[in-house]
Amino acid sequence: MRRISSRENPYYKALHKLCHSGRERRKSGRVLLDGMHLIEAYGAHYGNPDEILVSESGAARPEIASYLQGRATTAVSSVTCLADALFGDLAVVDAPSGIMALVGQPAAARGVADDVDTVLLDGVQDPGNVGSILRSAAAAGFSQVLLSVDCAQAWSPKTLRAAMGAHFQLAVHERCDLAAFLAAYRGQSVAAVPAASTGLYAADLGQPLAWVFGSEGLGVRPLVSAATQRQVRIPMPGDSESLNVAAAAAICLFETVRRRLGASPSPLSTGVA
Amino acid sequence: MRRISSRENPYYKALHKLCHSGRERRKSGRVLLDGMHLIEAYGAHYGNPDEILVSESGAARPEIASYLQGRATTAVSSVTCLADALFGDLAVVDAPSGIMALVGQPAAARGVADDVDTVLLDGVQDPGNVGSILRSAAAAGFSQVLLSVDCAQAWSPKTLRAAMGAHFQLAVHERCDLAAFLAAYRGQSVAAVPAASTGLYAADLGQPLAWVFGSEGLGVRPLVSAATQRQVRIPMPGDSESLNVAAAAAICLFETVRRRLGASPSPLSTGVA
Repeated sequence: MRRISSRENPYYKALHKLCHSGRERRKSGRVLLDGMHLIEAYGAHYGNPDEILVSESGAARPEIASYLQGRATTAVSSVTCLADALFGDLAVVDAPSGIMALVGQPAAARGVADDVDTVLLDGVQDPGNVGSILRSAAAAGFSQVLLSVDCAQAWSPKTLRAAMGAHFQLAVHERCDLAAFLAAYRGQSVAAVPAASTGLYAADLGQPLAWVFGSEGLGVRPLVSAATQRQVRIPMPGDSESLNVAAAAAICLFETVRRRLGASPSPLSTGVA
Repeated sequence: MRRISSRENPYYKALHKLCHSGRERRKSGRVLLDGMHLIEAYGAHYGNPDEILVSESGAARPEIASYLQGRATTAVSSVTCLADALFGDLAVVDAPSGIMALVGQPAAARGVADDVDTVLLDGVQDPGNVGSILRSAAAAGFSQVLLSVDCAQAWSPKTLRAAMGAHFQLAVHERCDLAAFLAAYRGQSVAAVPAASTGLYAADLGQPLAWVFGSEGLGVRPLVSAATQRQVRIPMPGDSESLNVAAAAAICLFETVRRRLGASPSPLSTGVA
């Protein structure tokens, strides 16, 4: 196992750049998966990653040691051990996982589909929010997510960590023209807009369905909202202006789940909300 | 206006400690509100804060300049201008807001109530998640939140920022014995537990209602779950193990909202989920 303890090591410098530069990630097409959970989620879809990084203290943990041992017998791959301080500078969280993998960014298995359940994100800027929404979308059974050009990067370490492997269950498309997609979409499209007159629980939700959620500060852009068939608001009995966008998305996506679980239409479709 | 440009200034050192030490916040009973939105939300409930901090570049922004000007005529208060680098080291986010207030931590207006809609957090450790759940709870019209001793601090800068002012609409109680509260609660209590046999949409949700959400890794502790009357899972059609806890809380809290908006019971209460 190769060991690196100097920040001047060229391989380490390349890793550091990849970790902290979105441009570098895009250019190289490589992404870092931080933690055992993400590595196993990747492995379930794409097989063992070629390059593994462990911290000195991580390599000593039973879970990681046993994973490395399992790989040694089955795969030709490189494992690099980084001094804890060097590993810590690559990690997303304060308590480093002790293991990362470097992999090629999985390409969406197909082009953008115009007839599947889709989540569209219009300028959602916090990687934690983007990741949480990917996770909710996968859990709700949606199969495709489109991000506008000004969203947080889908494959950044923070987004990956928040999504907990949802990336590998979804077709994720970045830098999309959302209005153009909506114009050609062959299902029903709905934007979550706080000022909408129709409440979520009174709205018709078709299938396939495209949900549109907007940025933390500004919401869905008028141009994008105008390209949707419906706009709905989440009724809020409390004295609040708005919800976190990932919370709002979870509510809308699982209201969709609820409708589909029950064959009957919502009892509230007569205007109570 | 006092100006500070040295990190060795005793007032700055005290601020820095307050910002980065949970123990210090608890000891002093003081909290930092970062950004105009939080300061205005505080002001709407408690009046102008006594101590204001601005960054040099923040003081020049029209919104902040006009806020300071408005205060000058109405309130005796201190405004301290910090060099941008010093202010940046106190700020939660990469793009500093330019203004903070130092205030006494508002005490919950009343003791813990045993008959109001309540959210209980059992070991939720990420301050962003705690903040998002507070925000959702306020929006859903819940009035009280109880945190177990091992939750992220409710009044940390990160939690405050994520909650966007919800702290001032809720009675927030920290370091609570959740099982003892549940034993004495005079409403219905429900824990969100992925392994529960009853689906959310099929569950009875009474009023008043206490929702219990558990930690990111381990969920609701068995001891706490056992103290609730019901356990429910969120049905997930996708191939996922779990949701982010703030997303799960939003789904459960707004399913409660949906039920209360419609007078009729859920159409799904016959076991579909």
